[in-house]
Amino acid sequence: MGYVFEHQVRFHETDGAGVVYFANELTMCHAAYEASLEAAGLDLAAFFRAERLAYPIVHTSMDYRRPLRCGDRVTIHLTPTRLDDSSFEIQYQLTIEDTAVAQAITRHVCIEVANRRRSPLSTEIEQWLAQWNGNSPEAGQGQ
Amino acid sequence: MGYVFEHQVRFHETDGAGVVYFANELTMCHAAYEASLEAAGLDLAAFFRAERLAYPIVHTSMDYRRPLRCGDRVTIHLTPTRLDDSSFEIQYQLTIEDTAVAQAITRHVCIEVANRRRSPLSTEIEQWLAQWNGNSPEAGQGQ
Amino acid sequence: MGYVFEHQVRFHETDGAGVVYFANELTMCHAAYEASLEAAGLDLAAFFRAERLAYPIVHTSMDYRRPLRCGDRVTIHLTPTRLDDSSFEIQYQLTIEDTAVAQAITRHVCIEVANRRRSPLSTEIEQWLAQWNGNSPEAGQGQ
Amino acid sequence: MGYVFEHQVRFHETDGAGVVYFANELTMCHAAYEASLEAAGLDLAAFFRAERLAYPIVHTSMDYRRPLRCGDRVTIHLTPTRLDDSSFEIQYQLTIEDTAVAQAITRHVCIEVANRRRSPLSTEIEQWLAQWNGNSPEAGQGQ
Repeated sequence: MGYVFEHQVRFHETDGAGVVYFANELTMCHAAYEASLEAAGLDLAAFFRAERLAYPIVHTSMDYRRPLRCGDRVTIHLTPTRLDDSSFEIQYQLTIEDTAVAQAITRHVCIEVANRRRSPLSTEIEQWLAQWNGNSPEAGQGQ
Repeated sequence: MGYVFEHQVRFHETDGAGVVYFANELTMCHAAYEASLEAAGLDLAAFFRAERLAYPIVHTSMDYRRPLRCGDRVTIHLTPTRLDDSSFEIQYQLTIEDTAVAQAITRHVCIEVANRRRSPLSTEIEQWLAQWNGNSPEAGQGQ
Repeated sequence: MGYVFEHQVRFHETDGAGVVYFANELTMCHAAYEASLEAAGLDLAAFFRAERLAYPIVHTSMDYRRPLRCGDRVTIHLTPTRLDDSSFEIQYQLTIEDTAVAQAITRHVCIEVANRRRSPLSTEIEQWLAQWNGNSPEAGQGQ
Repeated sequence: MGYVFEHQVRFHETDGAGVVYFANELTMCHAAYEASLEAAGLDLAAFFRAERLAYPIVHTSMDYRRPLRCGDRVTIHLTPTRLDDSSFEIQYQLTIEDTAVAQAITRHVCIEVANRRRSPLSTEIEQWLAQWNGNSPEAGQGQ
């Protein structure tokens, strides 16, 4: 269950304290989200061009336990959960060699781009949810 | 009460959806934090070089209401609150012409860099807290 | 002659070496370009939405003399020069308290977005060029 | 000859024009440089912590031929060349499915961190140069 993404920390992600700048860890999570979309068969360029539907982030949070350094290999374990017919949440667990370093959430709402009104999730996002979510109640609670 | 920071959205902050990338709104908040430190008399280069004490972010969250576009002038109203003798939280309200566009929190813990153990806040951070926090119970609740 | 832009270095622009990451100095230059457009009366959101014409960068270069640190106040002196009927170049001089720290160039070509073919510069870009360029031969050589 | 790096374009690298922001293509090149260092056996964290020697970039340039979009898989072919006993240059060729999309250069000078004076290249950088450079005159001209 869930999608697993590997990321090696790059120098531009670090800041003058010698560790990854806090907001860049959320950017890593979004990269994992992008990879999970592609792995489910979505066309990234079309998805993010967002001509009819878009999935803006309405909420995010992150807890930081250990600093990340240039060259660190981070594993991001991602699990999406459907919230209602027009929104979903993604949970991210960041680890280095099985040690937890951070965890995060992003919450997304599906909107029609033309009027920015809520819209039911597209079929392709429903399929992505089904692919990476355990689909059982326990799966959702397991995080 | 609180510190007010003005920021104009730059093109590199936007993404392919034509609006500011979600994590970049947290970066704006951190820029406001930096400006509030300098306005309280701290030396930014020394503070962030962090030779003895550092104030890493252990938690952040953000709620997004409206998208930001290139050229938008965002006002960030920042209020720090002491949590205990070694940590503080900052609340950020982002508005455009008095309309709320987002709000965020960052929580910071003071540590000794050498051993990464918790340390009481420095005098200069106590002064910064006193300067931008109303210090009265109502101020804290006002957010 | 030329447009002058002030920028204070922010923490996220620095890297693990404690100074501004090289590519972020080009981002600062682009911010100066954006400010010069707005100061000449252009609507930034419309300009960069680029529905009919766009001005992609086809070449850039930068020379770095001194490192920039968090909190440094950088002055960017920008001078645009028309190259031909569909392109222009911008020169940037970065200084801190009158000491040169870096210099850069960006070269832009006007294209029609629909087919990505070269197009003559728009009237508003011609006006921007006229406003910030000395327009005399000496001005161009002065850089 | 040379080192080959694969990078998939992420959403945060794009800007409001729907393509990769120009300065972010230089960041991709630096990521390729980092990977080439690690592939030659260097410890990235130690190298960029730069306690005794550092290799700041003193010059960069880039030519852009085609825009990059979210999800594009870019191949970066990197070739370093020794310039003199204290400096080297890296050439980068960016392609998508064998079509050239951009090329860049970064020039680095080895300095002693303590006094920022030029220093001969370290043994590990000499080895990295030997590993990825053809070392023959043709190799240098081949770019």
